Amino acid sequence: MQPILINGEWRAANASGSFQAENPATMERLPEQYPISAWADIDAALTAAAQAYLELRRLPPERLARFLETYADALEANADALCALANLESGLPVKPRLCEVELPRTVNQLKQSAAAARDGSWALPTIDTATKIRSCLGPIGPVWVFGPNNFPFAYNGVAGGDFAAAIATGNPVIGKANTCHPGTAKMLAEMANGAAQATGMPRGTVQLLYRTSHADGERLAGDPRTAAIGYTGGRSAGLSLKRAADAAGKPMYCELSSVNPVVILPGALAERGAAIIEEYVGSCTMGAGQFCTNPGLVVLPAGKAGDAFIAGVVAKFKSLTPGTLLTKKVQAGLVESAAVLRAAGAELLCGGTPGGGKGYSFANTLLKASGAGFLRQPEKLQTEAFGNAALFVVTADANETVAVLTALEGNLTGSIYSAKDGPDAVADQAAYELLEPILRDKVGRLLNDKMPTGVAVCAAMNHGGPYPATGHAGFTAVGVPAGLRRFAALHCYDNVRPERLPPLLRDANPTGKTWRLIDGAWTLNDLK
Amino acid sequence: MQPILINGEWRAANASGSFQAENPATMERLPEQYPISAWADIDAALTAAAQAYLELRRLPPERLARFLETYADALEANADALCALANLESGLPVKPRLCEVELPRTVNQLKQSAAAARDGSWALPTIDTATKIRSCLGPIGPVWVFGPNNFPFAYNGVAGGDFAAAIATGNPVIGKANTCHPGTAKMLAEMANGAAQATGMPRGTVQLLYRTSHADGERLAGDPRTAAIGYTGGRSAGLSLKRAADAAGKPMYCELSSVNPVVILPGALAERGAAIIEEYVGSCTMGAGQFCTNPGLVVLPAGKAGDAFIAGVVAKFKSLTPGTLLTKKVQAGLVESAAVLRAAGAELLCGGTPGGGKGYSFANTLLKASGAGFLRQPEKLQTEAFGNAALFVVTADANETVAVLTALEGNLTGSIYSAKDGPDAVADQAAYELLEPILRDKVGRLLNDKMPTGVAVCAAMNHGGPYPATGHAGFTAVGVPAGLRRFAALHCYDNVRPERLPPLLRDANPTGKTWRLIDGAWTLNDLK
Repeated sequence: MQPILINGEWRAANASGSFQAENPATMERLPEQYPISAWADIDAALTAAAQAYLELRRLPPERLARFLETYADALEANADALCALANLESGLPVKPRLCEVELPRTVNQLKQSAAAARDGSWALPTIDTATKIRSCLGPIGPVWVFGPNNFPFAYNGVAGGDFAAAIATGNPVIGKANTCHPGTAKMLAEMANGAAQATGMPRGTVQLLYRTSHADGERLAGDPRTAAIGYTGGRSAGLSLKRAADAAGKPMYCELSSVNPVVILPGALAERGAAIIEEYVGSCTMGAGQFCTNPGLVVLPAGKAGDAFIAGVVAKFKSLTPGTLLTKKVQAGLVESAAVLRAAGAELLCGGTPGGGKGYSFANTLLKASGAGFLRQPEKLQTEAFGNAALFVVTADANETVAVLTALEGNLTGSIYSAKDGPDAVADQAAYELLEPILRDKVGRLLNDKMPTGVAVCAAMNHGGPYPATGHAGFTAVGVPAGLRRFAALHCYDNVRPERLPPLLRDANPTGKTWRLIDGAWTLNDLK
Repeated sequence: MQPILINGEWRAANASGSFQAENPATMERLPEQYPISAWADIDAALTAAAQAYLELRRLPPERLARFLETYADALEANADALCALANLESGLPVKPRLCEVELPRTVNQLKQSAAAARDGSWALPTIDTATKIRSCLGPIGPVWVFGPNNFPFAYNGVAGGDFAAAIATGNPVIGKANTCHPGTAKMLAEMANGAAQATGMPRGTVQLLYRTSHADGERLAGDPRTAAIGYTGGRSAGLSLKRAADAAGKPMYCELSSVNPVVILPGALAERGAAIIEEYVGSCTMGAGQFCTNPGLVVLPAGKAGDAFIAGVVAKFKSLTPGTLLTKKVQAGLVESAAVLRAAGAELLCGGTPGGGKGYSFANTLLKASGAGFLRQPEKLQTEAFGNAALFVVTADANETVAVLTALEGNLTGSIYSAKDGPDAVADQAAYELLEPILRDKVGRLLNDKMPTGVAVCAAMNHGGPYPATGHAGFTAVGVPAGLRRFAALHCYDNVRPERLPPLLRDANPTGKTWRLIDGAWTLNDLK
């Protein structure tokens, strides 16, 4: 049985059971046994994290930064081994995906978070000289990070964006491995723990468990030692956890599901329908469609051009060998989602059956509904089919498109394609002005003429959106510095003596490069 | 029966019952009958608010600012009538409290919020030129504001800080009057509606209901048209509402209860115990103690100096005529809280009985517990006694003080008094360093040598804190611009065409005075 990482040590779990991962490309079980931790493990992790938090609070941000950078360097140095193992457990290709895209992004996230920790501007330090009141964001305590199946590195509980954000803000992290790639999580945690030791971090700064019972999951969400939770994963398990966190007043930042509507206006279809087919098919089949931002719902006009577009996508879908899915469960989920969509009136245009690719796979699948049909069962027809499947909704006119968008739940993204030139552009612009305000309120990131897959790690990114896409539309899971602000509390100091203030709030700028809001103006200057 | 304000019109309610307010100074019912609204009223308000929201989104922020300023001017012009009515309904003195403190603060909040709306910096506009991604905070939709009993103006559902913040961010507000001052809420709503009409705001921008059933309250919290809730009030009703809001994924910013610990270190007691007695008694009895930030829990050292301090407070408490309480229910709450505290082992030093002042009142009340006693029943002994009552916890040494602070729930504020000069200051500094990290994590605003009552409306203020003081430790209910960010969603624009961007995110600075984070630097410049 593989060990868990508690308080800086790899130790035997208090296991209530065990599980094995599978190689989805061969559909064979991998040999390692991983423990399902009983409460005693969770309890030990929380105790160690609470102690680590007290120690972390005494360290300067420079130390957090050095830890994150040392860890990032270790990931780069061990890229081949990491990508090989992640490939084995996830079926995601080593190249380009794991080695050239996801691992570099993960390293970049860690380094950006390190820079943010060092700089301190993320904390929005604010000084009012007249009232002698100063405030900034500060750390909150132990953070649980539940990583999803679809990003073995970039969202991993012990390496991904939530992890980096929580550490950069001064909090210890207890990572919950995704059960589809426990070995990858273990390898990452070994490197994290090595980097933590090399940089003298408190022992419980990074910990790793593989799996718990659902009941223990809910119990840990409400435990007084838990400060916050980052969760990316399935909606049903996420909502159980959220209920427990809400009841205990703990913030839980969750990313639950999203169909990422793409609206293609008539002019765009006329102007460059063939090009949009290419873009769409690339976005929807990349990674076998297993992205949070996969464009799973397309709204397009009825008529010849719409029919041709659909036919073009169907032809491509049929011609492409489907990718390997992450797990048997993802495959089963596609079977189930397709059945729900069909039962709700959607017509199957292609695919709909398991197989066709290497290992666990599912034929590239397209379903179709009319706008009127969609509006009869809007909830069911927004069922997320996680993977290489999509629903096209064909609307009779702009008013029906308005009605369809109005019926949407919260999503991570929403795209509108419109014509760029000529009279088509004028007509599309009128439609855009009608539709944009509705779509704007339903999504975190609004795109023009662009598919939603591909999430840049930058200051202006929003990887978030209204419920149920996430739990709070004001926060983003990707992007520095905004992503850091989730794992923080607002710390106000009223009449506190100068020498007792945190460095961010003293008269002198702590780094010379920290942006602070002093008497209403953002500045790098010292307060004189 | 008094009318409700729906969609810009005063109309008869669909009433399931009615209620009257009371004059707490005479304990007599006031003549006006106010309706308890049935669901039909709530439904009508939500429909009108949803429509107003669509219209508000098309208005430039300048219009929001003009509305708030016109309303603020109306409050100033009608100050005498407002203060007379608020005094009648709340028992709070016209001077200085209502006329010289609370109404000017309310006007100031409205004007600061107007300036923030006009300026736009509150929205943290962020531009990344390399990725063509831009983002800012934006409005979210209809906001309910439930006002508390203790601030007829500054927290009123149709005039207070939450109202101003929600409007300034572009959202319509449905105010729920506090049932202890419905007439004041009505008078305020008349002025708000007049200002809205004068400045051409959408009809449902400000609406007013007086009361609903608890079941309807929970239903409105989860209604799809509700975007968010601001709630300041009792813990039990607040938590029911929060459960419903959480289940529907709606953010609810609530301020539920707080005992606002004050730690007096031995050196401070020796250096200036008499002066601190004055400060403390003033803070704890002001407004009959009916402030969210009332210092209801004092931790001080056992021994002669501590005894003398306690004796000094008891003498003052006995000599001061207690103020009039807001309602009979507040008086009953004090009776109940004192009983809970005594049953949990606290010793009654003075007061503890109703009466002694004009109308509804309660003798200035002090209870005492040892540190060990407190630690035996920490939950019960943190029961908020809302009003002119406090619990003193006498600790044997610094370690016991550590244990007491560790056992605290989340609070709005926490104060530490320490010696300023000489050897006492050295010893107190050592204790401060031990205690501050613990207290820091339990409170939103940390004070030195200052009582917590008095909440400045400034950019660095935090009137918030960890659960259960509020629902999310990252947000503040007081202060501009931070308070505005609660009623907002993060709006990201990816590859959106320049002419389609909101003005805040176009290349040109929209006002010349809007702070924007462009490629990592805060600037007032245009993007060139």
